[in-house]
Amino acid sequence: MFRVNANYLNLNESYLFSTIAHKVASYKEQNPGCREVISLGIGDVTQPLVPAVVDAMEKASRQMGRQETFRGYGPEQGYSFLREAIALNDYNDRGVDIAPDEIFIGDGAKSDIANILDILGSDNTVALADPVYPVYLDSNIMAGRKEIFKLPATASNNYAPQIPRNGIDIIYLCYPNNPTGATLTRKELQEWIEYARRNRSLILFDSAYEAFITDEDVPHSIYELPGAKEVAIEFRSFSKTAGFTGIRCGYTVVPKTLTGLAECVSGNRREVSLRELWNRRQTTKFNGASYISQRAAEAVYSPAGKLQTREIIEYYRQNAKLLRESLQSLGCNVTGGINAPYIWLSTPDGVESWDFFDQLLKKCQLVVTPGVGFGEYGEGHVRLTAFNTREKTIEAIERLQTSL
Amino acid sequence: MFRVNANYLNLNESYLFSTIAHKVASYKEQNPGCREVISLGIGDVTQPLVPAVVDAMEKASRQMGRQETFRGYGPEQGYSFLREAIALNDYNDRGVDIAPDEIFIGDGAKSDIANILDILGSDNTVALADPVYPVYLDSNIMAGRKEIFKLPATASNNYAPQIPRNGIDIIYLCYPNNPTGATLTRKELQEWIEYARRNRSLILFDSAYEAFITDEDVPHSIYELPGAKEVAIEFRSFSKTAGFTGIRCGYTVVPKTLTGLAECVSGNRREVSLRELWNRRQTTKFNGASYISQRAAEAVYSPAGKLQTREIIEYYRQNAKLLRESLQSLGCNVTGGINAPYIWLSTPDGVESWDFFDQLLKKCQLVVTPGVGFGEYGEGHVRLTAFNTREKTIEAIERLQTSL
Repeated sequence: MFRVNANYLNLNESYLFSTIAHKVASYKEQNPGCREVISLGIGDVTQPLVPAVVDAMEKASRQMGRQETFRGYGPEQGYSFLREAIALNDYNDRGVDIAPDEIFIGDGAKSDIANILDILGSDNTVALADPVYPVYLDSNIMAGRKEIFKLPATASNNYAPQIPRNGIDIIYLCYPNNPTGATLTRKELQEWIEYARRNRSLILFDSAYEAFITDEDVPHSIYELPGAKEVAIEFRSFSKTAGFTGIRCGYTVVPKTLTGLAECVSGNRREVSLRELWNRRQTTKFNGASYISQRAAEAVYSPAGKLQTREIIEYYRQNAKLLRESLQSLGCNVTGGINAPYIWLSTPDGVESWDFFDQLLKKCQLVVTPGVGFGEYGEGHVRLTAFNTREKTIEAIERLQTSL
Repeated sequence: MFRVNANYLNLNESYLFSTIAHKVASYKEQNPGCREVISLGIGDVTQPLVPAVVDAMEKASRQMGRQETFRGYGPEQGYSFLREAIALNDYNDRGVDIAPDEIFIGDGAKSDIANILDILGSDNTVALADPVYPVYLDSNIMAGRKEIFKLPATASNNYAPQIPRNGIDIIYLCYPNNPTGATLTRKELQEWIEYARRNRSLILFDSAYEAFITDEDVPHSIYELPGAKEVAIEFRSFSKTAGFTGIRCGYTVVPKTLTGLAECVSGNRREVSLRELWNRRQTTKFNGASYISQRAAEAVYSPAGKLQTREIIEYYRQNAKLLRESLQSLGCNVTGGINAPYIWLSTPDGVESWDFFDQLLKKCQLVVTPGVGFGEYGEGHVRLTAFNTREKTIEAIERLQTSL
């Protein structure tokens, strides 16, 4: 008689964003005549793909329809044309030494961040911030990891968790942060790297929001800092950088210098290359991202693609600025919104975050994400995103000014 | 100090098709003047995507470039338009009762077949055929499953493994079979279903090649048979049906009636819905297949798409017939090639399969897949695929006729 993975029973019943979707759907059903509900909730983009990307997808689609240019299975690791464009533009041109064969193209950062756990032992200790992107936590619960330490990120530490005193095996860092919008300076990130080096920890560095960084002192990649290539895997996404949430393309960097300890049942211990393990995982359990998506991602690095996507990022940045400044002028306590597309708002009078969610939905027809959905230390906050249109962002602000 | 998943060290060093690719690349490098190498090796298609699919992808690409029609994150389970088209065309119209919400769209059958293990306990016993698609075996070794039983599929049982006497928890069945091209009749498959019902086993049914079935008595779906919805998960792919190997779209059917036992550490035991577990896995660790790929898949079910893809399947079927009959007329011992795109060829004089691979590469500049790469009982065989062009298939046959 077969058994299921009982670790799943230790998960919260429903995924945060599904719960929100259900609440909104039920509100709309009960209030058929209400004005349009505006979402500053899920971190999904609203601006269409830029012309350089659409052209590349149309061209790739036509290529797939002609015998001479048709392509079947691509390399599981991604096409060279894309791995090379990434190495050059996101790393080498910024003075960071990452080679194309250290870059693995995937179908989005969410999949890779969850799947990376496949190559790690289930007895590792894990540390993650609280509040945190729920995928980090849930994927570890699914894998049966028991020792998961939550590092509070609160107003009292400026939303930058303290480095633990003891040696933790696996550390999740996400900067610019989801959900708080907080960032780390070079010096602060360097301290995590030194910690990881001392304790032989692995840092899983999620830099999905790096395109929003304007501050010189906030690193775009952990590999800008010395020693990181011995301790960190980096995850990137085209979702926020170029609006690819529906296109599905991201990448994971596993440097050749990164090794981990394998403890075999026989008692043998040896160092193995994480890049080789991840390559084995991907060749066995993945068949590459869509050719169309990879050509789309390549176009992000073309001269036209760079200009066009930069404009969209600037558009969202302005939304973030508007939201942040309007909320501040309303006397609200906010963080984020600079170098980041997320604004982390303290609820007024310490109202609980789901209650505040309900209030905003009922009074303002606004959807935000309740902070407690990201962890217990997210209680008393909600997350707002800068990814809606300018018009709706402004209307949301007007509604907040009227009703808050 | 972090530890890697040491189960990876129990894998064979390299993935079968990577090894072949390396061998071919090195042969070409050492023989720069040789005639074109023809591959009947990896099961990759060669015919371009049909016009209905290309049109749908171009249209979807343009939609993504306009504000009014842009789509961000899709449902992790796939868009309704595609789930409904699949339920109707692949199931309901064939008299099989499967609902759209039992269908989960993924980025290909390979990912889903490997990832499904996430929701199953690591202490289950597993049975799979030998020879077998390597992903079934490797993904179980990665997950640390220790009791993996191999069921020999040889000439002596007509490449249909015997049903085990004892109760195995998880059974992989792939029909039409990769690599042997063997099929099961309704009666034979029903026996597996009865076995699974008696023993409360879970059948993972891979029907990636169902489009090649012409024989009335060979089921396209396991759900055509009574009782299957209580014991089986089915995996399907657009890769072979519609040439989507580079587009990445497949689907997994998890019926609502399918439950499994959860044994908690507390000692509590209860039945849980596998559909709910898979839904939880997908919402946490996946973000949906590309919108473009899903629109492409939808177009496969349009009237034009159906006609056009049927022609391509017929084209490959003819290749299979040509290969099978030519090899037979050369006195070779073959199976498969009917209701299946694979031909399973016994090597002459019991030559070992890697040696025969090398011979064919050197003498005929032909690439096949060595049977032993699919398991020890594949020794003494090679797999040929029908997925090359007609011209190259004919040339391959001519080379075989000259040199075999």
